[in-house]
Amino acid sequence: MSISTSTNKHSLFELQTQFCAFLSENRISQAPQNLYAPVNYIMSIGGKRIRPILCLMACELFDGQVDDAMFPALGIEYFHNFTLVHDDVMDEAPLRRGKPTIHNKYGLTAAILSGDATMIKAYECIAKVKAAYLPSIIQIFNQTALEICEGQQYDMDFETQEMVTIPAYLRMIELKTAVLLAASLQIGAIIAGATPEQTAHLYAFGRNIGLAFQLMDDVLDTYGTTAKVGKRIGGDILQNKKTYLLVQALSTANAQHKATLNYWLQQNDKTIAEQKIAAVKEIYNALGVRKNAEAAMQAYYQQAFAHLQAINVPESNKKALVDVVQQLMYRQQ
Amino acid sequence: MSISTSTNKHSLFELQTQFCAFLSENRISQAPQNLYAPVNYIMSIGGKRIRPILCLMACELFDGQVDDAMFPALGIEYFHNFTLVHDDVMDEAPLRRGKPTIHNKYGLTAAILSGDATMIKAYECIAKVKAAYLPSIIQIFNQTALEICEGQQYDMDFETQEMVTIPAYLRMIELKTAVLLAASLQIGAIIAGATPEQTAHLYAFGRNIGLAFQLMDDVLDTYGTTAKVGKRIGGDILQNKKTYLLVQALSTANAQHKATLNYWLQQNDKTIAEQKIAAVKEIYNALGVRKNAEAAMQAYYQQAFAHLQAINVPESNKKALVDVVQQLMYRQQ
Repeated sequence: MSISTSTNKHSLFELQTQFCAFLSENRISQAPQNLYAPVNYIMSIGGKRIRPILCLMACELFDGQVDDAMFPALGIEYFHNFTLVHDDVMDEAPLRRGKPTIHNKYGLTAAILSGDATMIKAYECIAKVKAAYLPSIIQIFNQTALEICEGQQYDMDFETQEMVTIPAYLRMIELKTAVLLAASLQIGAIIAGATPEQTAHLYAFGRNIGLAFQLMDDVLDTYGTTAKVGKRIGGDILQNKKTYLLVQALSTANAQHKATLNYWLQQNDKTIAEQKIAAVKEIYNALGVRKNAEAAMQAYYQQAFAHLQAINVPESNKKALVDVVQQLMYRQQ
Repeated sequence: MSISTSTNKHSLFELQTQFCAFLSENRISQAPQNLYAPVNYIMSIGGKRIRPILCLMACELFDGQVDDAMFPALGIEYFHNFTLVHDDVMDEAPLRRGKPTIHNKYGLTAAILSGDATMIKAYECIAKVKAAYLPSIIQIFNQTALEICEGQQYDMDFETQEMVTIPAYLRMIELKTAVLLAASLQIGAIIAGATPEQTAHLYAFGRNIGLAFQLMDDVLDTYGTTAKVGKRIGGDILQNKKTYLLVQALSTANAQHKATLNYWLQQNDKTIAEQKIAAVKEIYNALGVRKNAEAAMQAYYQQAFAHLQAINVPESNKKALVDVVQQLMYRQQ
């Protein structure tokens, strides 16, 4: 059932409702239980479903029918969840969205094997697009999937790398985060029959938005408030995570700041967590890295909208997409 | 370059040579090194390349060009290797084909992430088939991939299950082993333009051959000789592995045999390994489970050839396929 027409686009709320209903309908009910229960579990514990929503919105942007994009949108959500399951194993994370991670709840082998099955489910859903679009969509999906693995690898490599450059950092977040947002939009656009030029602009929109979002996350993890961000502030600092702020600080610090920064990077005693956060933040403030990050974020955000601008469809078609991006961009500030 | 014609089919040796050259040419050279070095490593440490060879032979069976099947054959080999990497983690196996497993050589996170990338490479290669064949081939591949995960799950479930039935065991080996051989053949046939009826027969041939091979492996692990099988005899018994022999023994043993069997299943002391093997084998002999397994194996083998018989192509086209299957079936006896 679709009520989409060129003048009557669905809102974020409507698409979210439709997508979540579709997700429930497509819950896996087959055996073996030990394989699929973890898949259903990770798919059910929420998240904002941004990627599938972007896919559906991209489809409506070009007057496509959301129903035609439902399975690929579900495939994208499966893929995203697969990455969460395996990343959580690699990061030894006990919780995800406030709930036990799969390896924590079901064990390591379940996390590996159910994660694999989740990825295959992604391909199963993607493959349900119209045959005419399948070659290009599967090609985009494969490339994106491999890039996400590359991004995760760079992120892990950075953990043990003393020096990370800003370009290397930006490339990592592009691969790890931005390309899936971009591909979600591009796939939705292809399903609606958009031209290669239009889909390329939409991909570039998504890529830039993804980079802006990640830089915002980096800033908020240090400069946000728990009330608005919904998690403990300073987590990145405590984990010595190579964020834009830390990478920028390490590459611009003078000898004295660098020594202080390196001193605190070696302090992992939880009882002095607050001192560590305050001390690192003080160096960030002295070096003005927040301003750098926000300037980069703004530049990506503006580039994103220049690409959206270049897409020749009625402005009313763009409204839902603009709304959701603005909401995501400003909700936490 | 292909010299295939309808009267000039390639031998096993020629196809193996061609495939290995193609594999080398397609070695991954891009960054990040930490992601792709393990992928190249697992792909390079050998194995008989049975699945890709079957795919190429299926293509030639219907007078197709092997070059058209090279990428999907490589995709199938990538997929098989992905399952090895993740299965080895789940089984905590230190060695594979006599070489260190990925998690042993590169660590757990490398095994998970490089395994994931290996699976995506599989899809990348599969997606290179002609657009007209892509929807059906990707559908077969997705279904097979999911079934293999299901088979692995059942295999792991069996480890802690006291009672496994013969039908459940056969279903497990069908999923874990036979369907990939079957799909490899089916995909090769589709690429050559075979009819659905022909590809269905070839799938059934592969499925039955796969079941027969696994039953043969089960028998040889207990009744073979190290010289011919190339590994220590009795390994399955020492690991309490639920093979056809053990499953059949547990379901047909009288109270006394069952008690003895259960006693030995609880003895995991390596210093009495040889006694354990001898004692369990004695019960197998008393119950005649080897004969049961061989009868089942023969039945699958004959069913396989009945399906091959039903395929209406010149007998000369079938020669390479028959040769390789007979070689695999009888090489170790």
